[in-house]
Amino acid sequence: MVRVSAPDGCAETLAIGPSTTRDTVPVAQNIYDDERFFTGYSALPRSVDGLVAAPEWPQLRRMVGDVEGRRVVDLGCGFGWFCRWAADAGATEVLGIDISERMLAQAAVDTTQANVTYRRADLDHLALPDDTVDIAYSSLTLHYLADLPRLLACVHRALAPGGRFVCSIEHPVYTAPSTPGFVETADGTVTWALDGYFREGPRTTDWLAPGVVKQHRTVGTYVGALTAAGFRLTDLVEWGPSADDLAAHPDWRHEVQRPAFLLIGAVSVR
Amino acid sequence: MVRVSAPDGCAETLAIGPSTTRDTVPVAQNIYDDERFFTGYSALPRSVDGLVAAPEWPQLRRMVGDVEGRRVVDLGCGFGWFCRWAADAGATEVLGIDISERMLAQAAVDTTQANVTYRRADLDHLALPDDTVDIAYSSLTLHYLADLPRLLACVHRALAPGGRFVCSIEHPVYTAPSTPGFVETADGTVTWALDGYFREGPRTTDWLAPGVVKQHRTVGTYVGALTAAGFRLTDLVEWGPSADDLAAHPDWRHEVQRPAFLLIGAVSVR
Repeated sequence: MVRVSAPDGCAETLAIGPSTTRDTVPVAQNIYDDERFFTGYSALPRSVDGLVAAPEWPQLRRMVGDVEGRRVVDLGCGFGWFCRWAADAGATEVLGIDISERMLAQAAVDTTQANVTYRRADLDHLALPDDTVDIAYSSLTLHYLADLPRLLACVHRALAPGGRFVCSIEHPVYTAPSTPGFVETADGTVTWALDGYFREGPRTTDWLAPGVVKQHRTVGTYVGALTAAGFRLTDLVEWGPSADDLAAHPDWRHEVQRPAFLLIGAVSVR
Repeated sequence: MVRVSAPDGCAETLAIGPSTTRDTVPVAQNIYDDERFFTGYSALPRSVDGLVAAPEWPQLRRMVGDVEGRRVVDLGCGFGWFCRWAADAGATEVLGIDISERMLAQAAVDTTQANVTYRRADLDHLALPDDTVDIAYSSLTLHYLADLPRLLACVHRALAPGGRFVCSIEHPVYTAPSTPGFVETADGTVTWALDGYFREGPRTTDWLAPGVVKQHRTVGTYVGALTAAGFRLTDLVEWGPSADDLAAHPDWRHEVQRPAFLLIGAVSVR
């Protein structure tokens, strides 16, 4: 048996710590400004080439829908690729929020549209004015948050009636394992060694830098938290590689074995 | 490394066959009347003791809600435990449908309520009159169907406006693997060997009898099929054992490693 690294190169080691309770939500880890993390993150295809390098983007874009004339917030905007796309697609105002000072600095340099602004904030302690947003978006960020219900309540209050929330997260099947990775058995079958699916809470992984803390939650918990916060689910998509993806990226072949990304669309209900 | 059987005793062997196309939906396999399958099925705790022996029932019951004065259909009713519960809970009419002649015969013997009727039908070819059902229910049955969209369209037409559909299925993480089972690594970690998550289609397993055919679909496919059929998702729950469950059933300890059941509630939208 051979342990093979994940196709996206994150052969992670991981420890399961105690659950974080809602009464003691810590200030979020800002490992994103760490030299190693930032350098590694900056080199990811989706950091270099933006949305077109994110294979899940076409499905997310469909969920986002028409942004013409809408006020948009991007929670965990990184280098601002989605913010610039939204402004180019006709959004009236775009606010990008991230905890990483270095990512926001580069986002500001790369952004020419006057209606895009960036703000540094810890999403675990975010406040937004009520009824000021039409579309809230968050790409691969929510699994870093200690207090998901708090953020969802904040987003719900910020959304105008009928406002939409579209997000992607690392799929719970991807975040659950105590030792994430593919395992090749003697007969050549490549399997994802899943454990701890119902053990929700922090996972400390070595991805780009040592000690990156993610929060594992089940699919049911994400859906239930959205419902409890006043959202109605409209889309639930698990990203897997298409035949075209596999032809273009033969190294993604193991991505058919387990889901890596979960994409959710929801509408605010009052 | 030791391969350990699943806690529910189904140490399965499995072959992946070609996908079934919608143009050629076969008459469903009726392995359920096979002597070995029927004998094994009859001995399952939930067959002997009914709903109280199904750990996911409390959550399903919450989704089913009030059945007082409602017309109820149970798709894959087996021995009729849910039909009798619904009649006792005040449903006006209850129709139980199954392909198994032997299960229906026992259901009829066990049922005294005059407003419960049973009908033998292949759910892959089911027809129901329009606007005649308030609550449709299906427990651990849909993963046997070759043509899910067809059944969902049939259920949607049968439901009166605002009617509800509540179902449980074997979780896609449970149905996906080419060789379903837990694997114990050298350090004692028990993992579920997941593969083939995005390879949808038939899986032939040896569960109670050799050659039982199940249809693997992703969570996203189930949700998408419901949406496409005109349903709005209201609940999505993954069953995992509670602390009480684990205290009462120590042999369920591996059930925390991966989800076994997916429970979905939806409402008909016109």
